[in-house]
Amino acid sequence: MGVLFQDNIYDLNEVYRQYLESNHSSDVNSAEYLLPSNPTKFFALGHNALENSQTAYSYLQKATVHDATFEREDVIFGPPVLNPSKIICVGKNYKEHVAEMKSEIPEYPVLFAKFSNALIGPEDFIQKSEKTNQLDYEVELAVVIGKEASEVTKEEALDYVAGYTIGNDVSARDLQKRTPQWLQGKTLDKSTPIGPWIVTKDEIPDPSQLEIKSYVNGEERQSSNTKHLIFDIPFLIEFISGLITLQPGDIILTGTPDGVGFAMDPPRFLQDGDTVTLKIEEIGILENQVKA
Amino acid sequence: MGVLFQDNIYDLNEVYRQYLESNHSSDVNSAEYLLPSNPTKFFALGHNALENSQTAYSYLQKATVHDATFEREDVIFGPPVLNPSKIICVGKNYKEHVAEMKSEIPEYPVLFAKFSNALIGPEDFIQKSEKTNQLDYEVELAVVIGKEASEVTKEEALDYVAGYTIGNDVSARDLQKRTPQWLQGKTLDKSTPIGPWIVTKDEIPDPSQLEIKSYVNGEERQSSNTKHLIFDIPFLIEFISGLITLQPGDIILTGTPDGVGFAMDPPRFLQDGDTVTLKIEEIGILENQVKA
Repeated sequence: MGVLFQDNIYDLNEVYRQYLESNHSSDVNSAEYLLPSNPTKFFALGHNALENSQTAYSYLQKATVHDATFEREDVIFGPPVLNPSKIICVGKNYKEHVAEMKSEIPEYPVLFAKFSNALIGPEDFIQKSEKTNQLDYEVELAVVIGKEASEVTKEEALDYVAGYTIGNDVSARDLQKRTPQWLQGKTLDKSTPIGPWIVTKDEIPDPSQLEIKSYVNGEERQSSNTKHLIFDIPFLIEFISGLITLQPGDIILTGTPDGVGFAMDPPRFLQDGDTVTLKIEEIGILENQVKA
Repeated sequence: MGVLFQDNIYDLNEVYRQYLESNHSSDVNSAEYLLPSNPTKFFALGHNALENSQTAYSYLQKATVHDATFEREDVIFGPPVLNPSKIICVGKNYKEHVAEMKSEIPEYPVLFAKFSNALIGPEDFIQKSEKTNQLDYEVELAVVIGKEASEVTKEEALDYVAGYTIGNDVSARDLQKRTPQWLQGKTLDKSTPIGPWIVTKDEIPDPSQLEIKSYVNGEERQSSNTKHLIFDIPFLIEFISGLITLQPGDIILTGTPDGVGFAMDPPRFLQDGDTVTLKIEEIGILENQVKA
């Protein structure tokens, strides 16, 4: 786990170790369990890891750290969460997308799953399985949970968020639609990019006012704003956590706006070599190439 | 992780340590990583953990072990897998159940997901959330994967199985059916018992000839045989592993026969205090009480 600051990446664990050292802590090695390097261990620690990251980040801004700095281009970015216990996706959550899919506005959030076999990072290829001829993109605002959440109200929901990232809910339409349940078209190996990083929630006070766009080979395909979500993020967290206990690191993919390839006339699916670029305001750009 | 042998439970890790000791191994502490006690670490080790278990079991049968034996009634049984990376369920996989649900025989296996928040063991209560008034039972043969499986053929599929257990795919019908995707009715916290143990595949040479039954408060509700599966286990492993890489510890719930409460006239759902008893030939009995 690292933090991006002034175009460098800082190793959070090492910065925290130096912070402890500067405070004459009796156990500087406690950085290993107070702010673990490994993202899975980091999220397992829950909210404390995020608080300790904030401490490390504050220290970084005022102190001189050593042996903890990497040039951005020397770092390979992986998915910001590797093995979430759950990836919960929300379908039919933008009105115009519901219309283009010739579906109906849902009365309750439509939830479906992906598994972590699908996750890739911002520098990986989207793997196009030979089992599908209808691979499609879906730009989505992804919420990363920061604290165990069970039966949370929408008023307190954002307290349980670690931050936000971009997700591409890549969907094999032929596999998704050949049975009534979508799972098999939604969780192909190495199909789902997330990233390029988590923007912590303090930097995005209102996640319901963000421009959201996608491009294929530079051509704009989707363009909307998260203010058009049918079920907004606080409501989704209340709804989901009323049924399912959310754990730190869990990902909620909040749904995609209109403009997917499946709904074009004729449909236009992703091919080997295509580049899919996703942009969400305040977060950045997630760009991946498709590889058969 | 333990093994049941002659009505005692043996601590596999400790037995393996004594086996290493008897072989004058230079590092008896290697039992900790060759055959870990923790089920999550055990399955992460993959096929080797199963092979080392077989070694420990053989040693147990011929040697005298000490400090590794527990009376069965002194042991609390948890779910035999705690945190599988995937729980993949198969819907509509017995013809008579498809008919009672007024559905159609699928051309491809219908796959859907649960998450590990739902898992409980044979001694736990099935938690009836106040969000549902239509909680239902579904007895299912559960396959536990023993070796990473990607694009496996049906001829070799059973090589990738660790063993079999019983699963109760408890379903909140009202939540399952209020949107087109079933997930929210299928993965309520502490709703899904599995167990009471894994029967390793060497003890069940043919998983497609097993009687499968369920009872509520002693009254028979479901009675069938796994020979009636529309898609059998080798086919399911070929099908799923062609789309999704399976990991050791992953669970496939293979579908339920007819006789669920939802399909009775009038429907009969699970209530606080009800006892659900599931039996599968060659595996045993999984019995849980429902608690509101």
